[in-house]
Amino acid sequence: MKKQKLIIIGGDAAGMSAASKVRREDTEIEIIVFEKSEYTSYSACGIPYFISGKVSTSEELIIRTPEQFKKKYNIDARILHEVVEVDTDQNRVLVKNSLEKTQFWESYDKLLIATGGKAYCPDVENRAADGIFGVSTLRSGIKINEFIENSKPKNAVIVGGGYIGLEMAEALLIKGLKVSLINRSEEIMNTLDSDMGKTIREAMEKLGVTMYLKEELKHFEVKNNTVSAVVTDKQKIKADIVILGMGTSPNTAFLKNSKIALSEKGAVKVSRTQRTNIRNVWSAGDCAETFHLVSKKSFYVSLGTVANKTGVVAGKNILGQKTTFPGVVGTGVCKICSYEVARTGLLEKEAKSLGIDYITATIESKTRAHYYPDAKDICVKLIAERKTGKLLGGQIIGEEGAAKRIDVLAVALTNKLTLQNIIDLDLSYAPPFSPVWDPVQIAARKLIGNQ
Amino acid sequence: MKKQKLIIIGGDAAGMSAASKVRREDTEIEIIVFEKSEYTSYSACGIPYFISGKVSTSEELIIRTPEQFKKKYNIDARILHEVVEVDTDQNRVLVKNSLEKTQFWESYDKLLIATGGKAYCPDVENRAADGIFGVSTLRSGIKINEFIENSKPKNAVIVGGGYIGLEMAEALLIKGLKVSLINRSEEIMNTLDSDMGKTIREAMEKLGVTMYLKEELKHFEVKNNTVSAVVTDKQKIKADIVILGMGTSPNTAFLKNSKIALSEKGAVKVSRTQRTNIRNVWSAGDCAETFHLVSKKSFYVSLGTVANKTGVVAGKNILGQKTTFPGVVGTGVCKICSYEVARTGLLEKEAKSLGIDYITATIESKTRAHYYPDAKDICVKLIAERKTGKLLGGQIIGEEGAAKRIDVLAVALTNKLTLQNIIDLDLSYAPPFSPVWDPVQIAARKLIGNQ
Repeated sequence: MKKQKLIIIGGDAAGMSAASKVRREDTEIEIIVFEKSEYTSYSACGIPYFISGKVSTSEELIIRTPEQFKKKYNIDARILHEVVEVDTDQNRVLVKNSLEKTQFWESYDKLLIATGGKAYCPDVENRAADGIFGVSTLRSGIKINEFIENSKPKNAVIVGGGYIGLEMAEALLIKGLKVSLINRSEEIMNTLDSDMGKTIREAMEKLGVTMYLKEELKHFEVKNNTVSAVVTDKQKIKADIVILGMGTSPNTAFLKNSKIALSEKGAVKVSRTQRTNIRNVWSAGDCAETFHLVSKKSFYVSLGTVANKTGVVAGKNILGQKTTFPGVVGTGVCKICSYEVARTGLLEKEAKSLGIDYITATIESKTRAHYYPDAKDICVKLIAERKTGKLLGGQIIGEEGAAKRIDVLAVALTNKLTLQNIIDLDLSYAPPFSPVWDPVQIAARKLIGNQ
Repeated sequence: MKKQKLIIIGGDAAGMSAASKVRREDTEIEIIVFEKSEYTSYSACGIPYFISGKVSTSEELIIRTPEQFKKKYNIDARILHEVVEVDTDQNRVLVKNSLEKTQFWESYDKLLIATGGKAYCPDVENRAADGIFGVSTLRSGIKINEFIENSKPKNAVIVGGGYIGLEMAEALLIKGLKVSLINRSEEIMNTLDSDMGKTIREAMEKLGVTMYLKEELKHFEVKNNTVSAVVTDKQKIKADIVILGMGTSPNTAFLKNSKIALSEKGAVKVSRTQRTNIRNVWSAGDCAETFHLVSKKSFYVSLGTVANKTGVVAGKNILGQKTTFPGVVGTGVCKICSYEVARTGLLEKEAKSLGIDYITATIESKTRAHYYPDAKDICVKLIAERKTGKLLGGQIIGEEGAAKRIDVLAVALTNKLTLQNIIDLDLSYAPPFSPVWDPVQIAARKLIGNQ
């Protein structure tokens, strides 16, 4: 029997999770990974810390090199190979070798698309200028660092006040740059409700970030093909370096002419087995859609956790095992200055837009017993369905020890717990860790009183 | 209609939670609380930190005074009043006023028994000597402090290597005492499996605690009615102060001649509504039994969280609301030196003794991304049912940021999650908080591989 061939497009979290899973259970199948950049399997989430200097070398962010994949797993990961076309009728992909400037067709029996995402930027004037960076690949992180070292920019403008924008704002402050941030909506962190985002904005302002709210990027001005200013609908802001923090969009441009179905946002449509509309083609990670267990809708999210999990599920299904990825509840966490910020499930504004009749409560508590040294502030907001008391979502802002409590709410959402169920949970307590009622339970108690 | 009268015996967590709940929804009922000590509503769990000096005054441990209960809730909390007999035929209790040395009967319509627990000590010679202390009431904490100040003990012996024994060992080390600990079984922390307890023992030995394992308390020696040595089955250990850390037993001696049913261990037997075998008598907190949701057996545990929760449930049922306390999954957490220690569900040894066919795996990971500064060690052990993969229990040892992850496993147990369910959970990830796969998921992935 002819040896089967699996081609994987993209050599980071989803692709390499799938590749490793397949190899562990099938020593025969040929596995070829085409990766556009120079790197496989790295932590893109670590880039802000590499820029700030908290992580000293980019190598520390690399989990496994192509050589290690070859040696340990017999996986043929070819870097600097970009797939530019997929032909599902003939089961082949067109590959551009950017080192040798060659191009060739490679056939497959099974195909996994795991090309990840890239920093979104609207199609404005000069968007391709030097000094404008997204933060979605290790290569971009290294380039930012080189640019800072070589061009010594003084003024940084961050476009967008989400996780990445804020992490990068802090990193560039640490590097000694003057940092401004423009944000389209009236409050930063639109991954939270605006009452929660305010705390973070004020902390960042205190740290020295100049915030421009309700301002929209119009275009960039350049000098010698390098960015010199960000022009908004209200003003022109001097910029020697620009970081794009307006979210991530799936890397699927090369699929436009293929028969693989994409969502409106360009994400690959997949079933719960991570299979696309084509029988022998799967997709996983930041280039694919996922399912939101609370809103019960298809959902696009760009997260390392989801990439790893969907990669493994794709791998299992490629092996012929019938498994599914149930979906996500929309959990996210981020550290900004001394603040920890987390959310899961639906925000209040999301519940509202879905037409759900909800109740909400916000409480202030402490991360430890009130009398224990270094008890830090924590603020918890919960949203629940009015009629049933079923949890819909939670948001946490606080200092050290606050954010990871979101995980209790994430498990609660997955299991459709009510506020009373949350109050009844046997959560751990000792004075160095929590008040007797954990802050998430204090919030549930307050909210159940509102019912 | 005659005003109803609720009598509550015991003015700490369970009793006062019930009292407050009842008062919030019934402004008419008369509420009298008889409390043996001088204090109401305090954090007994904070005592080791009061002894070590981390908490500077005993007042910081008090949540509400009798005056505050009177003023804010119209609850008549009478301190230094000990109930010595309960007569359920005539609906009355015999009360000893230890200040005025008087005794009187008080009638009730409804009765709540919330007398808590006390440090267990076998009935050995000289157990009532000065210098021997349990750590279950604020009064005992204050007395320990006074004894240390006045008698300046040099040698401390801790009897028992559980949470309280270890917390007190650390506290007394901080106070400058020479500390020995005797432990009956072959490893300390029998709330964990012995492979996990070893780490903590070694850390405490490094800190300077002398450990005597597999040694049993035989009796105490005294000089001038003050303890001078602890005699074990193997040796005599010089002791100027002794701390009892052999667990807690319910304060129910005064019920021995009543019609209220007690368990073999002396805990008040209650239904899920916290009602005793007598129609108008409830019980909650450390004096009552609870239900273990994993072993499906009645269970005695002494914990502030359970006291608060069962107190509220008792209060609701006293109000005539039909609510139940589902039970606990056996969650506990503790900080010893720089180590955080947590457990939930069944230990391996407990699963074994219940005759369950289980699998187990232990992993070492980090509390943050491996490259992020200050990533600390974390060790997770999971136990699952072999056939179904259903989680049975988890244990965590690690440094800062490790222990609270036990809560995810506690919610998982409550909801009967399998290892695959745990792997699928949408837990929060960012480099300052976790590896991409949270350590509890890494453990689940390893264990599912063992299935």
